[in-house]
Amino acid sequence: MRAVGEIRRPFAFGRRHANHAPMNIVFVLFDNVTQLDFAGPVQFLSRLPGSTVQIVSKDGKAVTTDCGFSIVPNASFADCRPADIICVPGGHGVRQAVGDAAIVDFVRQQGAQAKWVTSVCTGAFILGVAGLLQDKQATCHWAYTQLLPMVGATHKAARVVRDGNVVTAGGVTSGIDFALELIALIAGEDVARTLQLALEYDPAPPFQGGTPETTSPDVLHNLRARVYDRAAEQMEEALRDSGMVG
Amino acid sequence: MRAVGEIRRPFAFGRRHANHAPMNIVFVLFDNVTQLDFAGPVQFLSRLPGSTVQIVSKDGKAVTTDCGFSIVPNASFADCRPADIICVPGGHGVRQAVGDAAIVDFVRQQGAQAKWVTSVCTGAFILGVAGLLQDKQATCHWAYTQLLPMVGATHKAARVVRDGNVVTAGGVTSGIDFALELIALIAGEDVARTLQLALEYDPAPPFQGGTPETTSPDVLHNLRARVYDRAAEQMEEALRDSGMVG
Repeated sequence: MRAVGEIRRPFAFGRRHANHAPMNIVFVLFDNVTQLDFAGPVQFLSRLPGSTVQIVSKDGKAVTTDCGFSIVPNASFADCRPADIICVPGGHGVRQAVGDAAIVDFVRQQGAQAKWVTSVCTGAFILGVAGLLQDKQATCHWAYTQLLPMVGATHKAARVVRDGNVVTAGGVTSGIDFALELIALIAGEDVARTLQLALEYDPAPPFQGGTPETTSPDVLHNLRARVYDRAAEQMEEALRDSGMVG
Repeated sequence: MRAVGEIRRPFAFGRRHANHAPMNIVFVLFDNVTQLDFAGPVQFLSRLPGSTVQIVSKDGKAVTTDCGFSIVPNASFADCRPADIICVPGGHGVRQAVGDAAIVDFVRQQGAQAKWVTSVCTGAFILGVAGLLQDKQATCHWAYTQLLPMVGATHKAARVVRDGNVVTAGGVTSGIDFALELIALIAGEDVARTLQLALEYDPAPPFQGGTPETTSPDVLHNLRARVYDRAAEQMEEALRDSGMVG
């Protein structure tokens, strides 16, 4: 069993600053993950006072990302202690992951006992095939929201959706807003504001856009035609093939 | 020499969509990098039409991050082809990196011939000790901007600062805004807007803040006292010890 280190938290809080129970935060990685789905939330959540972070893959080995590099986790499923927060990122690798019983079973078991069950982007569908979105309001990347009913969820149009202890975020960059909201819920607004300052999160997109509703019709049409119409079909097929959807 | 793969770009553009010369984009990694400084820009820039991405460390081996996991690059300094864009992220590891002649020499040589010389957060100081910020307007993480004159730069108060072919970004999350601005400069606004939509970048921070000017005085005071007053002193010492500053 490999050692699971407390990570260094040079610009946040030690346990003595925590006003809540210690939390073991578990991120579930798999090949071809969209790396920013994970990298945004982990940057913020790893600074939650009194927390430990376990970044896990099935066998504890490196996983490929969509950006040409790999990530070396710090634990395997077998090494993983009970999650207080489980967070599942998305990416095109989700299509394989929803058919991988080891991943789905791990998420189901950890999610059944976690205080917070969370996802970013298409990671929602891994929660979904694990049965964790049944009768829940949820969201995911805008191109896939119409598939949420396949896993028993109802889409709610928001960047971050909370339904009880289930918190789901929209596409990729929404994971940062999700993390700040979760930190505020758990540790309070001052901690969230402190991390927002430490990580200089005062976003200034150079253009309006970033959602189907706010971008130009041409940009949306072209991106759908070139990528997402087919990608959503492939996700639908993968969900059906998983045998885990209604 | 290891193969340097074209990464898969499932939701962007192939070379046939490029209206500019192909670009080799080089990210320079080192131990104890602030992983989101890198993860934000690489998610966007790796989708620049017709680009290749080389993620390099000195020896091509994995580097540690500040979040409990490691990143496996896809090239070593020796394997790295000439950069069209060089991007240097920051983090507490910068203090060691500015004293590492192999890193500084690599950045100097690549930066001298690159079309675009860029940094996020305290990565600016690696550009700086390599001589690439001399007489330039620049920025970095808000807690370190007063140190920019040590490397010959003048601080300009903006989230992303362009001075000729040098583009520097503020702390951590500013790397996303930086990447979109650079993509728009190189490939045009439609490409930038398309990637903004693909990555659902319509940020919605739950709180106002994220800069010393917009957060509460208490949050700023406490974070400075607990972390950044000392961190800035340590950076200043590291810059002096590097022997590369005026």
